[in-house]
Amino acid sequence: MAACALLSRLSPLLRERLGCRVRSFSCAVPCSQLHRAEGAAGLTGKVDRFGGVTVNLAETGLPADISEHAFSRLLQDSLVRWKAEGKMAVWLRVPISLSRCAAAASAHGFTFHHAKSDHAVLALWMGEGESRLPGFATHQVGVAGAVVDESTGKVLVVQDKNKTKNAWKFPGGLSDPGENIGATAVREVFEETGVRSEFRSLLSIRQQHQHPGAFGMSDMYIICRLSPITYDINFCTHECLRCEWLNVSELAETSSTTPITSRIARLLLHGLEHGFDKIDLTMEELPAVYSGMFYQLYHRQLPVHS
Amino acid sequence: MAACALLSRLSPLLRERLGCRVRSFSCAVPCSQLHRAEGAAGLTGKVDRFGGVTVNLAETGLPADISEHAFSRLLQDSLVRWKAEGKMAVWLRVPISLSRCAAAASAHGFTFHHAKSDHAVLALWMGEGESRLPGFATHQVGVAGAVVDESTGKVLVVQDKNKTKNAWKFPGGLSDPGENIGATAVREVFEETGVRSEFRSLLSIRQQHQHPGAFGMSDMYIICRLSPITYDINFCTHECLRCEWLNVSELAETSSTTPITSRIARLLLHGLEHGFDKIDLTMEELPAVYSGMFYQLYHRQLPVHS
Repeated sequence: MAACALLSRLSPLLRERLGCRVRSFSCAVPCSQLHRAEGAAGLTGKVDRFGGVTVNLAETGLPADISEHAFSRLLQDSLVRWKAEGKMAVWLRVPISLSRCAAAASAHGFTFHHAKSDHAVLALWMGEGESRLPGFATHQVGVAGAVVDESTGKVLVVQDKNKTKNAWKFPGGLSDPGENIGATAVREVFEETGVRSEFRSLLSIRQQHQHPGAFGMSDMYIICRLSPITYDINFCTHECLRCEWLNVSELAETSSTTPITSRIARLLLHGLEHGFDKIDLTMEELPAVYSGMFYQLYHRQLPVHS
Repeated sequence: MAACALLSRLSPLLRERLGCRVRSFSCAVPCSQLHRAEGAAGLTGKVDRFGGVTVNLAETGLPADISEHAFSRLLQDSLVRWKAEGKMAVWLRVPISLSRCAAAASAHGFTFHHAKSDHAVLALWMGEGESRLPGFATHQVGVAGAVVDESTGKVLVVQDKNKTKNAWKFPGGLSDPGENIGATAVREVFEETGVRSEFRSLLSIRQQHQHPGAFGMSDMYIICRLSPITYDINFCTHECLRCEWLNVSELAETSSTTPITSRIARLLLHGLEHGFDKIDLTMEELPAVYSGMFYQLYHRQLPVHS
């Protein structure tokens, strides 16, 4: 039955193109009826509310060894049909093993939209004028955590092993996919210094484009304020040369640091002297309207009576 | 000379694998010398400071019609060599026309790292333990602009044509690649409403993961405060149902809006009543240490004497 189910998902045109080799199997539905049941020519996909069609090549029943040429012809026929149907865009999800189909598709104007792990997505705009296809992710997110010990006026800093020597910085690193800003800060601080901490607030954001460490994409670097839970340092010697609790006032004055770290140190000093409510953006978790999933919202805290 | 230069970039092993068809050409360097000049087997690439090697298939002199099988053998030989050399990672940049090579590479453990437009990048971690390969961009950035007319206490709002009816929102949209937050806000406001404005401050950030409109990636949604330069509305009927200058106090109270818009309206109300310095994160442009390019830094503004 499996082979029958597979064949039934192919269009008559596809079976014809492939020189349909009907293997012997027991099946309740005669092949002739399968052919008649299919009305459409070529590939089929899901239509979205913007008038685009998405074809997942892993689910179209294509033979694993389909040639670029055969796929190209199949795609051509499908494009003719979709154009006639007024489709605005075509999305092709191509498993990595079928990558030769991506090459075939590029000859028809498809380009890569994105790729992850075991598949690539190609897109073709078929509407009028400039493409209105939504882009893909453009930013990596890096997070640094400034762990401030209010009882001593000190902040936890590291000297990076791989970069500018003797420059004090806050521990930090790239967010993992799906990881919240505060979680990244706490994790990176622990991994680099051995100190456990908890998120307090967002302090600053830096946006940079054509970032050298981001494959030419953009970088959003977010600095957070954390409070220490533990104080003993056990720093990672792969990443750090040194790690210390340094007076915030000293960090704000020293030249042995980066411009951003110096700026944040001044911000922290102001917070230590006048209250962190003067500098913090606090976080609140709220439910998203449509999905029910949660998102994290950061802004200046409003007085209670507002 | 071009063919000679091409052949000279191929390793002896490659020429052998391809059944080297030496075309007649006039060349100062005899072929035998070309073979002797090449010591390495297989593909060659650039080595980075992390011990990774990057191979750009568009620059390796591979024939455009190289078979998956031939490439696989070539890659296999190269991997043996790189492993022996202690390389930590291999990056393959594959032009879309050579996508069949991606399929061949996947059989050797390569996975997609990312893809853009006309090429894909695959990666293979060869070091000890868990992969330490840097990830790719994970977030799209959306920006909304709240244009506040301080003289009237009104803010410019729209009703989205495609979403929840009767919900007032700030105009906004996705940042273009390389576009700064403030520029996105000003552009989107103009495109949706016809009103020209200028950036004043960053007010709030929302982070959401597995965003339905972001191909399952993450979303950073940034709300900015803008000041109007012009006031006449000429809204885009493709995107908007309505567009008005609405009292901030009314927006803060109405249920005909989204939770975030309501929250920002309350923030704006506080700003109108107590000064925007109470809610703003101001922006400063600073030069990046290494590249000399500029980045934008946002944080609470420090008093002048700090």
